[in-house]
Amino acid sequence: MPTIDPDRLLSDLHTLRQFGAYETGVHRPTFSPEDVAAREWFAERCREAGLAAQIDGIGSVYAVSPAPGPKVLAGSHLESQNRAGWLDGALGCVFALEAARAIAADPDLAGCGVDVAAFCDEEGHFGSFIGSRSYVDLLEEEEIDRLANRYDGTPLRQALARVGLAGRPRVRHEEGRHKAFFEAHIEQGDTLISSDLKIGAVTAIVAIWQYRITILGDQNHAGTTSMARRKDAGLAAVRLLAEIDRRFPALAAERTVWTTGRIALDPGAPSIIPGRAEVLFQFRDADDAVLARLDAELRRLVAEADAAGPCSVSLEVLGQSRPALMDEGLQDAILAAAEIHCPGRAIRMPSGAGHDAQYLARIMPSVMLFVPSIGGISHHWTEDTAEEDIVLGARVFTDAIASVLRA
Amino acid sequence: MPTIDPDRLLSDLHTLRQFGAYETGVHRPTFSPEDVAAREWFAERCREAGLAAQIDGIGSVYAVSPAPGPKVLAGSHLESQNRAGWLDGALGCVFALEAARAIAADPDLAGCGVDVAAFCDEEGHFGSFIGSRSYVDLLEEEEIDRLANRYDGTPLRQALARVGLAGRPRVRHEEGRHKAFFEAHIEQGDTLISSDLKIGAVTAIVAIWQYRITILGDQNHAGTTSMARRKDAGLAAVRLLAEIDRRFPALAAERTVWTTGRIALDPGAPSIIPGRAEVLFQFRDADDAVLARLDAELRRLVAEADAAGPCSVSLEVLGQSRPALMDEGLQDAILAAAEIHCPGRAIRMPSGAGHDAQYLARIMPSVMLFVPSIGGISHHWTEDTAEEDIVLGARVFTDAIASVLRA
Repeated sequence: MPTIDPDRLLSDLHTLRQFGAYETGVHRPTFSPEDVAAREWFAERCREAGLAAQIDGIGSVYAVSPAPGPKVLAGSHLESQNRAGWLDGALGCVFALEAARAIAADPDLAGCGVDVAAFCDEEGHFGSFIGSRSYVDLLEEEEIDRLANRYDGTPLRQALARVGLAGRPRVRHEEGRHKAFFEAHIEQGDTLISSDLKIGAVTAIVAIWQYRITILGDQNHAGTTSMARRKDAGLAAVRLLAEIDRRFPALAAERTVWTTGRIALDPGAPSIIPGRAEVLFQFRDADDAVLARLDAELRRLVAEADAAGPCSVSLEVLGQSRPALMDEGLQDAILAAAEIHCPGRAIRMPSGAGHDAQYLARIMPSVMLFVPSIGGISHHWTEDTAEEDIVLGARVFTDAIASVLRA
Repeated sequence: MPTIDPDRLLSDLHTLRQFGAYETGVHRPTFSPEDVAAREWFAERCREAGLAAQIDGIGSVYAVSPAPGPKVLAGSHLESQNRAGWLDGALGCVFALEAARAIAADPDLAGCGVDVAAFCDEEGHFGSFIGSRSYVDLLEEEEIDRLANRYDGTPLRQALARVGLAGRPRVRHEEGRHKAFFEAHIEQGDTLISSDLKIGAVTAIVAIWQYRITILGDQNHAGTTSMARRKDAGLAAVRLLAEIDRRFPALAAERTVWTTGRIALDPGAPSIIPGRAEVLFQFRDADDAVLARLDAELRRLVAEADAAGPCSVSLEVLGQSRPALMDEGLQDAILAAAEIHCPGRAIRMPSGAGHDAQYLARIMPSVMLFVPSIGGISHHWTEDTAEEDIVLGARVFTDAIASVLRA
């Protein structure tokens, strides 16, 4: 079996966390100077490992192995959420690089290789999975023309030009080149850590169904408008959300989650009855039947609220992704490798968060490996994973890839 | 009885609406150039009526009658809410001026007089009723030092200096000078218009009890955090507000109103479980017992939500004003005058909105007269009242003042 170098692995992760260091995490938004420096450093590190590395026209790093035989693609992303964790994305990139190095150095795997990818902007500063979608041919030039930074409005084209990537070709997948795609990631939840488990073999990446609920009433004076005469859009929102809260548990599956991320009342003043309310609501599940059931119930509750009046209530779909099923054979490879390094401490589990693997799964057998997140924390600079769990995860990841290459 | 001049009355109102004209309403925030010009024009118009007028050190216009005998104080405010109605405040000032003119011209009321006041900033661009509170000795210099424009942050002292009022004395009430205070105003609700009534004699100005409810949970990833492990501050807010919605109707009185004006979830992103929620909640009533009952219930529900967890819920009082009772004899005077001009079409009613009269009532018998608001609309530029209702209101207002002066 290939042998990883724990010191090299951890050293690379700690070097990477210096690009945009923020408290104990990182602030490395897509195409910020720190992000660009991290991409260049990572590409160089791939070259030092004998891979041919480039940053392509959408900002992804691709490092390809010169091996003539079977190859696997592995990777994740390098940019971070704002002021967030040091491992979210970075861990999967460095695991891929370490696997590439260990496998290239293993005489038993002569001729086999690992290509390494760091897909750009998985964290969505400009768009939605633009790096992995570009790679699997699901990103049109027209969409790139349209996209802009969601915080400061900078057009994506302008950002690409500023960092010297305008006009560079985008790397697309090469039919038949890879046996599989592997992505390692921190769990971001507490399923593993709370049961003292070490490895998660991901069964599916859940779908996210995102909605905007808009409620229109009448803006009016909060002192002179009787309760009977009001058309209070805020109150209608509260009643609808309370009804969702009552109804969803009975319809949800074990791991379904649903979230109201925003409630905006207009104008939002203490003495004015809100004339308009906007609610962002989403649910996630890996099962199409559950998604369809919740969608139907949401539509029923919205229609009921609209019919009940006095406010009009409408629903707009902002996104309805499909669950992405991970390859069962690849899950088996992860669990078999885990059984060697940490017997009895690995499980199959879905991913509640979206990942690049959901797009790679459309073109080749794909799988994800999760390592434990301390406290289940993510998207915050306190996110962390024990170093021994990182090293263990890299061993299992590399062995699983090796077993696939060898098969 | 004194005779008002409808043309002069309407002409003054139409002149006033040109200061800061906006659509069919006005935009005349306190100490804007348009507001200052309106004050100066109104003071001059009072002088033309034989009153000694000045703008005092807080920005209020005071115009005093030279009459040696019994006097009444009448007035309202000149500034408007942003992009709001042309009559809110202005109507009460012009009614007061017209009453002063008509009574000064009436030989039967020789020696009697009406002082006219336009209290500054009733609409609260800088503070809360600073003009009327200054007049009744409830505004300290320290508060003036502290106040600033709520939209652009300009300190009140700086605004007063800019418009040339810094250092001017503030006019305080003169003990025993006035038999009563009269304020006319548009109703701002639809009680009169929906029953084809013409005059409201206000029984009390309701108290406003304003609260901030703060809910603290844990901000977390909306995909990877199981429903069981969440501390969703937004959901806790929805549950509490739904409970208030269920409980309050049984405890409220006929005219009680309660309003959630703002719900802010932090950070307010679609895929992040809100870690913090802030709710602005208020209720209004003219009855101390009702106010106390609702306050107790709100505290009970907040404590219950806090104890139930998993989020902490706390309540902060932002304001608890007292109901201001209007003088019954003055109400009778309004109803008696109305019985002459529009028999059977006047009622007693409380005011759901705050007005300067609530502070004047602390130092002398006070009353308000309401005229109908078309569609019950206020605080919007479409606010309006039929001209015949304006003229009728001014007749009743003037006659009621005359009867008090004569008594």
